[in-house]
Amino acid sequence: MMVTLEMIRDAQKALEGVVRKTPLDPAPQIGKNIYIKAENLQMTGAFKLRGAYNKIRSLTPEEAAKGVIACSAGNHAQGIAYSATKLGIKSIICMPAGAPMSKVEATKGYGAEVVLVPGVYDDAAKEAERLRQEHGYTFAHPFNDPYVIAGQGTIGLEILDQLPDVEQVVVPIGGGGLISGIAIALKSLKPDVRVIGVQAAGAASMYTSHYRGTPVELRNVSTIADGIAVKRPGDLTFAICEKYVDEIVTVTEEEIAYGILRLIEGQKTVAEGAGATPVAAVLAGKVDTLRRKTVCVVSGGNVDVTTLSRIITKGLSHSGRIVEIATKISDRPGSLMQLLHVVSETGANIVSINHAREAKAADVGACIVTMVLETRDQAHIQQIQDQLTQQEYYLLKN
Amino acid sequence: MMVTLEMIRDAQKALEGVVRKTPLDPAPQIGKNIYIKAENLQMTGAFKLRGAYNKIRSLTPEEAAKGVIACSAGNHAQGIAYSATKLGIKSIICMPAGAPMSKVEATKGYGAEVVLVPGVYDDAAKEAERLRQEHGYTFAHPFNDPYVIAGQGTIGLEILDQLPDVEQVVVPIGGGGLISGIAIALKSLKPDVRVIGVQAAGAASMYTSHYRGTPVELRNVSTIADGIAVKRPGDLTFAICEKYVDEIVTVTEEEIAYGILRLIEGQKTVAEGAGATPVAAVLAGKVDTLRRKTVCVVSGGNVDVTTLSRIITKGLSHSGRIVEIATKISDRPGSLMQLLHVVSETGANIVSINHAREAKAADVGACIVTMVLETRDQAHIQQIQDQLTQQEYYLLKN
Repeated sequence: MMVTLEMIRDAQKALEGVVRKTPLDPAPQIGKNIYIKAENLQMTGAFKLRGAYNKIRSLTPEEAAKGVIACSAGNHAQGIAYSATKLGIKSIICMPAGAPMSKVEATKGYGAEVVLVPGVYDDAAKEAERLRQEHGYTFAHPFNDPYVIAGQGTIGLEILDQLPDVEQVVVPIGGGGLISGIAIALKSLKPDVRVIGVQAAGAASMYTSHYRGTPVELRNVSTIADGIAVKRPGDLTFAICEKYVDEIVTVTEEEIAYGILRLIEGQKTVAEGAGATPVAAVLAGKVDTLRRKTVCVVSGGNVDVTTLSRIITKGLSHSGRIVEIATKISDRPGSLMQLLHVVSETGANIVSINHAREAKAADVGACIVTMVLETRDQAHIQQIQDQLTQQEYYLLKN
Repeated sequence: MMVTLEMIRDAQKALEGVVRKTPLDPAPQIGKNIYIKAENLQMTGAFKLRGAYNKIRSLTPEEAAKGVIACSAGNHAQGIAYSATKLGIKSIICMPAGAPMSKVEATKGYGAEVVLVPGVYDDAAKEAERLRQEHGYTFAHPFNDPYVIAGQGTIGLEILDQLPDVEQVVVPIGGGGLISGIAIALKSLKPDVRVIGVQAAGAASMYTSHYRGTPVELRNVSTIADGIAVKRPGDLTFAICEKYVDEIVTVTEEEIAYGILRLIEGQKTVAEGAGATPVAAVLAGKVDTLRRKTVCVVSGGNVDVTTLSRIITKGLSHSGRIVEIATKISDRPGSLMQLLHVVSETGANIVSINHAREAKAADVGACIVTMVLETRDQAHIQQIQDQLTQQEYYLLKN
């Protein structure tokens, strides 16, 4: 079954009163011509609800009576749980046992039965398939499903309604469901809008598949953008992307972290890794926004707060606002103070210090001091390093 | 000069096209009946711009020609800088030399000349006064000024426009400028709306002044809500609060941190300490929201990201989602593994471990292990502690 504009319009009608028409606002702190479609402010914190609800509401009465099953430790799980409960249908979510506690609790909170499966994602998927066969549940695929894609496509309709003169839309790609829906909506109604997909470099399955000309399965994926860590695009989503998507770019982990940081500082909004990838691509100059009104789809905001601080640190480091410098000093009273004197003269602010006598790299009679410093930018870091080198401090490489 | 509704209406006209009419949205993740007025999404990241602009636009041509001076390391500085530059007027901001680098850079970025003064806030204030006398600048007070108060009052008009059936508004109090303006607007147009002020317990100057019946100067103030760390309310703002504010409550540092955390996780929005105090008060049950449509004014979002991670940790700890447990183990191979076995059986997730042989509290032959664990809630923490005690681990008090 192909996905049509009519299916997306149908989905929009069905979703009325269930999903939020999320704000689309200018993001001057990110850049000129940049707008943000804030799906992180969607109910359940991510766009996934749209496709999930559209899928579940189109079950037959027999299917609905038996219930739905899904395999996800993320936003799809919450979207399915929320939608099923709203429609009075039973939902079962299989998750790998190591899933973050906050995700498990949130999914249970929306009314799903959560099955924690020992092992990794693939093990949870196998268990979901086993349970499906045993109980006759309907399996709700996270992206390779026409109803799911049509649901996500409603974002495209909203963008055209909120910013009729939009010229370019930048969308994260994991399995490709989100961009497929958005691209069909946009290209059907305004064919000259450019649609750019963004993948994490550590999980570039659609990117690789595009260049090979066929869906490719990656052996490993690894990225802080866990929402788009997908090994293989769907056949349906691959075909739609090949037809409608103008370009796919990739972003590094540092670029993603910097995107999250800039959204926090500039826009006061919280994006998860996947949600920050369009902004990351824009900030890294990978998307031409000079002459085009560009909408970045911030697809979700469900970032695990216990990892948020690490992401912030990575983002600060990427922009030269924090740096770790390690050096040797002699193991004598006053040595550390002397070092700190040099550092403070440069105007850098000390975040933390580790002074280790037993470090492997320390000679007898020497200590390794590792300092984390708050700095202004890369030039400031260079200045500090030059100053230390001039004062004959030997800087250890990281 | 008293502040009138007409002055606030005048300010609203003057501010058109300069300040953003910030969103007022339901915040179901915070609670039933709760709405958020998102002044953290205001230009410059805080409401201060409103008062600052209204003050500067009402200078006489002679005053304008000489320029304005202010003393602030925070949002007032940015509001003054932005407004003055917009109006083509020179601005000088005195800051204590230890001000966060991000604030200095942001203020310079908005076009102000920043003077870093050695010492604390009071030293910077003295220098500002000296420069004012020397150069004839106009001093822009952060709160005790009728034009500043009238500017902040425009938030009250917007709330009534956006949520006509509002029944209660909760507002942070530092010097009292924000709540004074809002209260005048609300009580003039809809006298039955309750206006509740919130102060940090560590900087409760208006609270104390109210109970003493006269403006009191606190000797010390200390709070993560640096935007409202004010030692003494203004005479004007004190008088207005006495007349119009229904109640003042205080919140602890933990409650503020928890408020910031819940806004990040639930609303995907970034509040600074001061901005989170109304939500903190609601979450702590200090404001009756059972039967009243309540607007929390999230006054700003300029939280220093390098401290954000510490705040998140404090918030997680407050809600029992992270805990530090220290215990003794014997200094033998396998001891740590045994301990970790007990911990992992409880389902807690290890965030970090410190294993110290030289710790002061460690006997010879023993080590102190300090673990930071990710937990579900307070009951889960209790269960872990009970389990460890049953296994004869001695838990060290923090």
